[in-house]
Amino acid sequence: MVSRTTRIGIIGSGAIGGFYGLMLARAGFDVHFLLRSEYAVVQKDGLSIDSALHGALHMKVQAYASAGDMPPCDWLLVGAKATSNAELAPLLVQAAAPGARVVLLQNGLGVEEQLRPALRDDMHLLGGLCFICVNRQAPGVIRHQALGAINLGYHSGPDGVDAGVIAAEGAGLFRAAGVDSQPMDDVGQARWQKLVWNVPYNGLSVLLQASTKALMSDPGSRELVRALMHEVVIGAQACGQVLPQGYVEHLLRVTDQMPEYWPSMYHDHVHRRPLELQAIYAEPLARARQAGCHLPRIESLYQALTFIDRRNRAD
Amino acid sequence: MVSRTTRIGIIGSGAIGGFYGLMLARAGFDVHFLLRSEYAVVQKDGLSIDSALHGALHMKVQAYASAGDMPPCDWLLVGAKATSNAELAPLLVQAAAPGARVVLLQNGLGVEEQLRPALRDDMHLLGGLCFICVNRQAPGVIRHQALGAINLGYHSGPDGVDAGVIAAEGAGLFRAAGVDSQPMDDVGQARWQKLVWNVPYNGLSVLLQASTKALMSDPGSRELVRALMHEVVIGAQACGQVLPQGYVEHLLRVTDQMPEYWPSMYHDHVHRRPLELQAIYAEPLARARQAGCHLPRIESLYQALTFIDRRNRAD
Repeated sequence: MVSRTTRIGIIGSGAIGGFYGLMLARAGFDVHFLLRSEYAVVQKDGLSIDSALHGALHMKVQAYASAGDMPPCDWLLVGAKATSNAELAPLLVQAAAPGARVVLLQNGLGVEEQLRPALRDDMHLLGGLCFICVNRQAPGVIRHQALGAINLGYHSGPDGVDAGVIAAEGAGLFRAAGVDSQPMDDVGQARWQKLVWNVPYNGLSVLLQASTKALMSDPGSRELVRALMHEVVIGAQACGQVLPQGYVEHLLRVTDQMPEYWPSMYHDHVHRRPLELQAIYAEPLARARQAGCHLPRIESLYQALTFIDRRNRAD
Repeated sequence: MVSRTTRIGIIGSGAIGGFYGLMLARAGFDVHFLLRSEYAVVQKDGLSIDSALHGALHMKVQAYASAGDMPPCDWLLVGAKATSNAELAPLLVQAAAPGARVVLLQNGLGVEEQLRPALRDDMHLLGGLCFICVNRQAPGVIRHQALGAINLGYHSGPDGVDAGVIAAEGAGLFRAAGVDSQPMDDVGQARWQKLVWNVPYNGLSVLLQASTKALMSDPGSRELVRALMHEVVIGAQACGQVLPQGYVEHLLRVTDQMPEYWPSMYHDHVHRRPLELQAIYAEPLARARQAGCHLPRIESLYQALTFIDRRNRAD
């Protein structure tokens, strides 16, 4: 049962964590935000969202600079980059109430497997896949351009629990906050499905310094997007995940209808943060290869991105 | 027989045309340079080469702004970009003595086939493949960093000629000028072979804004270079051209030993000139495809480059 007394912790309150956390806080949940560089600003001024769907939102929030200061949370939403999961694990353990549900709002493969050994046995781990166009504009200021759904799938936790019930409970929490959300049977399948979007657009936004609109308008890059998407589908199949029929064409249509969007990897590159190449490229490539499947276009894109990422952070 | 009275026309006197033309002029050949934007400077000051192998060369040269002013030439060396071959053909016909030999010093596939119908039947057409690190520094000023060989293969001409004799005659001309040069039996095979270098380095220098040294130093881009080279070899094989055993590893070693080099496509991009994508990418991809062979890495690189090229010239 979802009740407004459910206590929610947001770990990593960038665009994704900030957006969903503020939506939940607005709906009356008891939400606690763990911040790093933005702590002072958010503690003083709160969080704002300029949303194309929900209008302008602004709220003072319960902000923390240290996980040790947070009260024990029933749900922990992880909005931090997958690249920081190793440092994150102890904070999650600190902030987790007994039997807490941790939801990784991250892209790519292998993120739950990476984090799981560092969590307590009583903690539940779920994957959350966000279909949303959202960016951080300034400390504590978020721009929400389009979409917003978040789907939850259970990954692991104590024996004897009903995974479906916990995923449905999480989805209910978001729906109570006005956010479209569905429980998913198979988080592994959902993660491959999400990659069909992330693999082309995240990487090409960095490689070609181009928004989704620019990538979709040019016939060369559009064909490259489509070919990369098809390779993800082939990789998923090789790993035993059958994606919905016509999913590539569906995503091309969805992206055509999106406003001009700069994926998160583009922003990471601009701000010289490490790119999420492990979860979005290296892990899918490794799993496909282990299944005897080569994905030459994705591999080429990955190789080019490793070059760009290394140079960007060495300069 | 090569004699110093051989009259040579250089059509398009950028880095390649200027270098070989000046080497031939220095050796005492009667060399005539057709120029466009650089005419006034070169007419006044001559041509200079700052060569890592030959030292500093500087000579006044016979410069022309119009092909109609040139005397009829026995050999015509075409150093202009393959992208301008359509405009070039009438100038070649104008400057050609009866039975003239035209040598296309260009990269890629299909350049002779494209030009041939626009030449006179008495004119011989050869392909010239240049293994040289050379750049234009300023109008009439050329920097020669390394290598220098030029190999010639006969393409087409009047019936009843000995193709091998004409290619050998051309090679003798260059050798008389102190330039390493060999006649080649099969210009088609040689063009595929040259692509093994051009496909990775030209495209990646634009895509990643990187010199050969940077591309070779990073493990990601180095693997990408190698994988692209292997795809060229596969494409060549599909088109019936068997390249020498171990050629990819040979070229990687050669490039490791080169000074830091920025391929010509990089300079074209910086100066917002059209990239030679047709000859270096589109034509090899089309021929391989016709032979039932897909080259996904090269195709992805080509698609990305068409995006970059269009944006670069639209801005």
